Amino acid sequence: MEFHSVLREIEQFVKSELYPLESQVWGQGWKDIYPVLDEKRAMVKNRGLWIPQIPVQWGGLGLSLHEFGQVSAVLGRSPFGHYCFNCQAPDAGNMEILIEFGTPSQQELYLKPLLEGKIRSCFSMTEPNHAGSNPVHMSTEAKLDGDDYVVSGHKWFTSGADGAAFAIVMVNTDAQNENKYERASQILVPADTPGFNIIRNISVMGEVGSGWASHSEIKYDHCRVPQANVLGVPGAGFRIAQQRLGPGRIHHCMRWVGICERAFEMMCTYAARRELSPGRVLASQQSIQNWIAESRAEINAARLMVLDAARKIDREGQYKSRIEISIIKFFCANVLQKVLDRAIQVHGALGMTDDTILASWYRHERAARIYDGPDEVHKSRVARLVLKEYDVKI
Amino acid sequence: MEFHSVLREIEQFVKSELYPLESQVWGQGWKDIYPVLDEKRAMVKNRGLWIPQIPVQWGGLGLSLHEFGQVSAVLGRSPFGHYCFNCQAPDAGNMEILIEFGTPSQQELYLKPLLEGKIRSCFSMTEPNHAGSNPVHMSTEAKLDGDDYVVSGHKWFTSGADGAAFAIVMVNTDAQNENKYERASQILVPADTPGFNIIRNISVMGEVGSGWASHSEIKYDHCRVPQANVLGVPGAGFRIAQQRLGPGRIHHCMRWVGICERAFEMMCTYAARRELSPGRVLASQQSIQNWIAESRAEINAARLMVLDAARKIDREGQYKSRIEISIIKFFCANVLQKVLDRAIQVHGALGMTDDTILASWYRHERAARIYDGPDEVHKSRVARLVLKEYDVKI
Amino acid sequence: MEFHSVLREIEQFVKSELYPLESQVWGQGWKDIYPVLDEKRAMVKNRGLWIPQIPVQWGGLGLSLHEFGQVSAVLGRSPFGHYCFNCQAPDAGNMEILIEFGTPSQQELYLKPLLEGKIRSCFSMTEPNHAGSNPVHMSTEAKLDGDDYVVSGHKWFTSGADGAAFAIVMVNTDAQNENKYERASQILVPADTPGFNIIRNISVMGEVGSGWASHSEIKYDHCRVPQANVLGVPGAGFRIAQQRLGPGRIHHCMRWVGICERAFEMMCTYAARRELSPGRVLASQQSIQNWIAESRAEINAARLMVLDAARKIDREGQYKSRIEISIIKFFCANVLQKVLDRAIQVHGALGMTDDTILASWYRHERAARIYDGPDEVHKSRVARLVLKEYDVKI
Amino acid sequence: MEFHSVLREIEQFVKSELYPLESQVWGQGWKDIYPVLDEKRAMVKNRGLWIPQIPVQWGGLGLSLHEFGQVSAVLGRSPFGHYCFNCQAPDAGNMEILIEFGTPSQQELYLKPLLEGKIRSCFSMTEPNHAGSNPVHMSTEAKLDGDDYVVSGHKWFTSGADGAAFAIVMVNTDAQNENKYERASQILVPADTPGFNIIRNISVMGEVGSGWASHSEIKYDHCRVPQANVLGVPGAGFRIAQQRLGPGRIHHCMRWVGICERAFEMMCTYAARRELSPGRVLASQQSIQNWIAESRAEINAARLMVLDAARKIDREGQYKSRIEISIIKFFCANVLQKVLDRAIQVHGALGMTDDTILASWYRHERAARIYDGPDEVHKSRVARLVLKEYDVKI
Repeated sequence: MEFHSVLREIEQFVKSELYPLESQVWGQGWKDIYPVLDEKRAMVKNRGLWIPQIPVQWGGLGLSLHEFGQVSAVLGRSPFGHYCFNCQAPDAGNMEILIEFGTPSQQELYLKPLLEGKIRSCFSMTEPNHAGSNPVHMSTEAKLDGDDYVVSGHKWFTSGADGAAFAIVMVNTDAQNENKYERASQILVPADTPGFNIIRNISVMGEVGSGWASHSEIKYDHCRVPQANVLGVPGAGFRIAQQRLGPGRIHHCMRWVGICERAFEMMCTYAARRELSPGRVLASQQSIQNWIAESRAEINAARLMVLDAARKIDREGQYKSRIEISIIKFFCANVLQKVLDRAIQVHGALGMTDDTILASWYRHERAARIYDGPDEVHKSRVARLVLKEYDVKI
Repeated sequence: MEFHSVLREIEQFVKSELYPLESQVWGQGWKDIYPVLDEKRAMVKNRGLWIPQIPVQWGGLGLSLHEFGQVSAVLGRSPFGHYCFNCQAPDAGNMEILIEFGTPSQQELYLKPLLEGKIRSCFSMTEPNHAGSNPVHMSTEAKLDGDDYVVSGHKWFTSGADGAAFAIVMVNTDAQNENKYERASQILVPADTPGFNIIRNISVMGEVGSGWASHSEIKYDHCRVPQANVLGVPGAGFRIAQQRLGPGRIHHCMRWVGICERAFEMMCTYAARRELSPGRVLASQQSIQNWIAESRAEINAARLMVLDAARKIDREGQYKSRIEISIIKFFCANVLQKVLDRAIQVHGALGMTDDTILASWYRHERAARIYDGPDEVHKSRVARLVLKEYDVKI
Repeated sequence: MEFHSVLREIEQFVKSELYPLESQVWGQGWKDIYPVLDEKRAMVKNRGLWIPQIPVQWGGLGLSLHEFGQVSAVLGRSPFGHYCFNCQAPDAGNMEILIEFGTPSQQELYLKPLLEGKIRSCFSMTEPNHAGSNPVHMSTEAKLDGDDYVVSGHKWFTSGADGAAFAIVMVNTDAQNENKYERASQILVPADTPGFNIIRNISVMGEVGSGWASHSEIKYDHCRVPQANVLGVPGAGFRIAQQRLGPGRIHHCMRWVGICERAFEMMCTYAARRELSPGRVLASQQSIQNWIAESRAEINAARLMVLDAARKIDREGQYKSRIEISIIKFFCANVLQKVLDRAIQVHGALGMTDDTILASWYRHERAARIYDGPDEVHKSRVARLVLKEYDVKI
Repeated sequence: MEFHSVLREIEQFVKSELYPLESQVWGQGWKDIYPVLDEKRAMVKNRGLWIPQIPVQWGGLGLSLHEFGQVSAVLGRSPFGHYCFNCQAPDAGNMEILIEFGTPSQQELYLKPLLEGKIRSCFSMTEPNHAGSNPVHMSTEAKLDGDDYVVSGHKWFTSGADGAAFAIVMVNTDAQNENKYERASQILVPADTPGFNIIRNISVMGEVGSGWASHSEIKYDHCRVPQANVLGVPGAGFRIAQQRLGPGRIHHCMRWVGICERAFEMMCTYAARRELSPGRVLASQQSIQNWIAESRAEINAARLMVLDAARKIDREGQYKSRIEISIIKFFCANVLQKVLDRAIQVHGALGMTDDTILASWYRHERAARIYDGPDEVHKSRVARLVLKEYDVKI
């Protein structure tokens, strides 16, 4: 099937099958709506649209990053989009690194059921006691003990841990290594390993959440796993984390573009319909016209920049695209926040309610400016990379 | 007691008695914590600090608006502050208009128990089917039938209706009046009146809430109340609404200043303590220094402007202070949003959680730019008032 | 020659031949430096790079809009760029409409010497007594008198009139036409026509200017020109003005992108070199890193959006690209202002001086947010076009 | 005379005597208009309003800082205001430090004619080769040679040096002192001292300027002056510089408030009068209403903050007011830039011209965010002072 047909079909599916879910099941816990979502997943599989981001040999559509970016923007319009196509974070990233770095046995045990949507997974990196903006500042450790690693440490914001079959955990295996980028490893820890203790689902912006839609605090208390559970080689944890970053960035940023497009539509629809007084609609107000125009401009900019970065990654690889990858992170996250803020302002009191999906996005997507590196880290990084050409090291 | 001693005592109370509640009861429904709050209210009464905004003859401290503004900034530092001193919206506003416009019988029945904290009340104005930004665009009606008014209509965002003893309802009593500012009346409707139907507590930014901390959708289905329940005279609804506006604005804006001060303290405390790497704290980052400086500047500006407006209202009345009253609304609401946003960014992942109070303020105080007139309405209003001096009518 | 070779050659020329002019002749009046510029123009002709935007049959390089956009960004890096390649405003626009709407005789008399760079021209539209943001609100009139039109009116901001051989003047020829878009015509008025009175070169941001680099106030006092001097047909003035708009927008916006790139380079160079204290350069400051990153992001966004619009105009025409054409106007003009402001802040006191070119751009390019429609007009226009899809007419 | 009468009289004078000068002499070099200005100065003296900031015993009005701040806001409305009252920078600052630190002989020679307006002076601190944002990073030196100091160094942005009778020069007298704040001294250098070489008046934002309205680059080439020309004691240069800072800040910031008020008036006047189409004025546009409201709010905030700082300095001294003094610098400078930018946007093409005074302010007052410490320095300073209370040293 030609790509643009695929894209149109996915868009059609999102609008006809997923939009209606918002009024039907939104606000219920994620765990409670798995049956409904499973039906939708089955439909996606039947239509041959399952795991679009995954290479053909692994059962996906084999889209390039530039193509999948466009799919992600369509899926992002619904809070159920990525999940129903099995390309939601963090599973999508976990699939990628298992494809690239997994041993045949790891792929058999962990990757295959993940691709099939039979299990979910999580990625356990951030720690409450260390600034997430510094990825080499970490305490969780895996100590060799015979043929096993024994993992101990304290993580949080392990998204989707509630109900996951396994975690990929970032741990120090060589904390004293002089090269701070070689201290960490990524290691597979099944959720039924003794010592894998989910302390709580963290209440985030008023919601504890459940299932995939949750963020757990986890204590790893002497979790014993075989050495064979290490991804790639010991010490490669940081490098593998980098690897998942480029594509993940495109996924996220285009998901945000999708949210923006949806919020933009809602803003326009409401402004065109809501009367200030008989016959005079909100859209007649110049302030609202300004927001529509500014939002349209910024969303266009965001989309073009992410697709440009995707094309560059497809063509030249992640390393050469580092500036673009950092730029889209802070640029798009800020566009997202502005567009959502304006959409809420247009909706007035209604925008504050959970009668529309805007309020949920407003509060949960505030995290976009924080996770995967806060704005400030990316800005400094861009500046440092740019300044290299000016013979200054800072 | 001299005012500055009162202020210091209140601040002391807020810090020692109310701050600790945040870790103890925050996140529980308001209804579930009434017993704890009632204890605190008793302490406030014992210390002679009860209803500070109310004239001495009615049992309050008789503070001027300029003084109460400063109290409100102190109380605003805790989400429990205003409630524990019985000066929370909308009860404080209802007390004021009952004092000014209530008949002796209305005061006996409604005002006294309100002042004593025995009952709560609500103010029912906003309608889902009409833009709240246009206060004369409204459908709820009260029709005369014998000695009674029969109230029918559809309201929402009636805050604190859940558990209130009565509502003051904004209704059209003369919808065809050529003077659109004389169409409405305010009328007292006891909550046990047949036809007073709370449809739901609206889920707002992820929380349904309960008790005082809720926003209800209400259908008034032929609620019959005596004519004597009208406040002031029929047709005075709009004028009375204006009356409550000036002091209410000072209360709210200074409450926001209080929130800002608290968020500012939290931001500084966290920045001073959180390490990016061993020995290097967040506060060493220039971006964070910028936010601290900009926040300090903006909060100072907000505080000075509100107190200046309060002084002017105290001295020259509301009418002459219309420009200032509108300016502080949009200026302070925007400072509040910026300061909270920065405080969350400084806290990183922690800022997204409900482990601090910031996330709750971030989402619920988004409404500050909407209720009591969105930014845009106040800006246009200021411009129109300013331009009067330039001989242009727009 | 393949396009990218052309582009590289032009960039090389700009850097080696035009950059040095800044320290040599910058600050002198334009009229005084024509000899130097004429030398450069001769070099451009010799290298076969002359009038790149013009079709091959008229002696140009026949670049598409998408290609010329990229050239314009390179030329924009120098204040002498467009002029030396004879693609400066308003001549470039005048060439375009003479090619499209000129009669053979008009082309012989006006177009050919213009293409050859033997004469200059101007475009006389804006009037001091009417808001330029409303292009159909105009007083200058051309009255038929026998075979002639007699033009009378008051214009200003006729750029480059000082020394121009002719003006294309926007005049009402049918002021009472019910269709306000058919009232105006464009008419060729030679500068030696009696009654063509340049009142003054307007002092703009501290500079009166001269020659091409000037903005004149002109009184047309019964200028008599033959009917044959009308462009296209009488009444087509507005339509022709629209015609020049799309390409002109791309030229301008990419010129601004070029200015931004140059300012960005200067900002980085200075930040990398200037010491705050021995060994600690400006670039070490996070605020400056933020500006570098934000500028890089915004310039990338601007470039991608303009090129995307150019591609769309090339492919689908101006009419279908109206939203994009308006968006790039306000978006790029604002990026330009922000980037220049940051570049000046980085340069500190030096940025205020005319020792660099930044200060000149800072003040003269402030006009970018005003000419060809102020930001506000374009925003409202975008909103109206977007809202058409939402069944609302405003 | 009671202060408010003084203030009203000054305002009256500014409006009736100084406003008209703008259309009469604006755009001419400052040197060419001294005769006109001298007439106005004579009038000011006759009315007993001369040097209002100076203590009564020295012939001034003895206003407090809080009072003079209000005067400065009135004078700032005209570009001729401060000059005509002899309280213009840098003379006002020089007067202050001569009063406080001058010897009787210095006061006789330098202060008295300055107070009388017979001579002008300059303050020579900034150096082209060192970042002005770091005041202890400086190369100019004064070497003891017998009873004399021999001053050598390179300064620029010495405002008003052209025609000044003397300079107060910041020099290192003890460059190796371990305490970097004790390395510098301030020293009086008469302009006729051999070796006092004004290289040029720097072209700033398109204008070379002359007389008081100029910024010179100066080479001090072995300027020999008696030791007695040191202000205070050797090594006190930095401390004295600090001393002039607080009052100078109030003067400047209130001057900016005055500029803002004038720009605001011009913006409102023009918006109320300029027609977009017959009968529809600019002021009817909501975007312009927004700017009017936001400007009114920000100017009010700026004024209240500066007056609050002035009151604090009057009451508690500069040291305790350091946070406020830094805050008003960056806050007011940014308000100034925003208000001027909006005023120009409202004026459209006219705003770009020198037909109004806005364009001159727009370009020259861009320096407000740079001189006396750029925004970034003040923000970091505020943050550091605030964070002291949080037990962190950064």
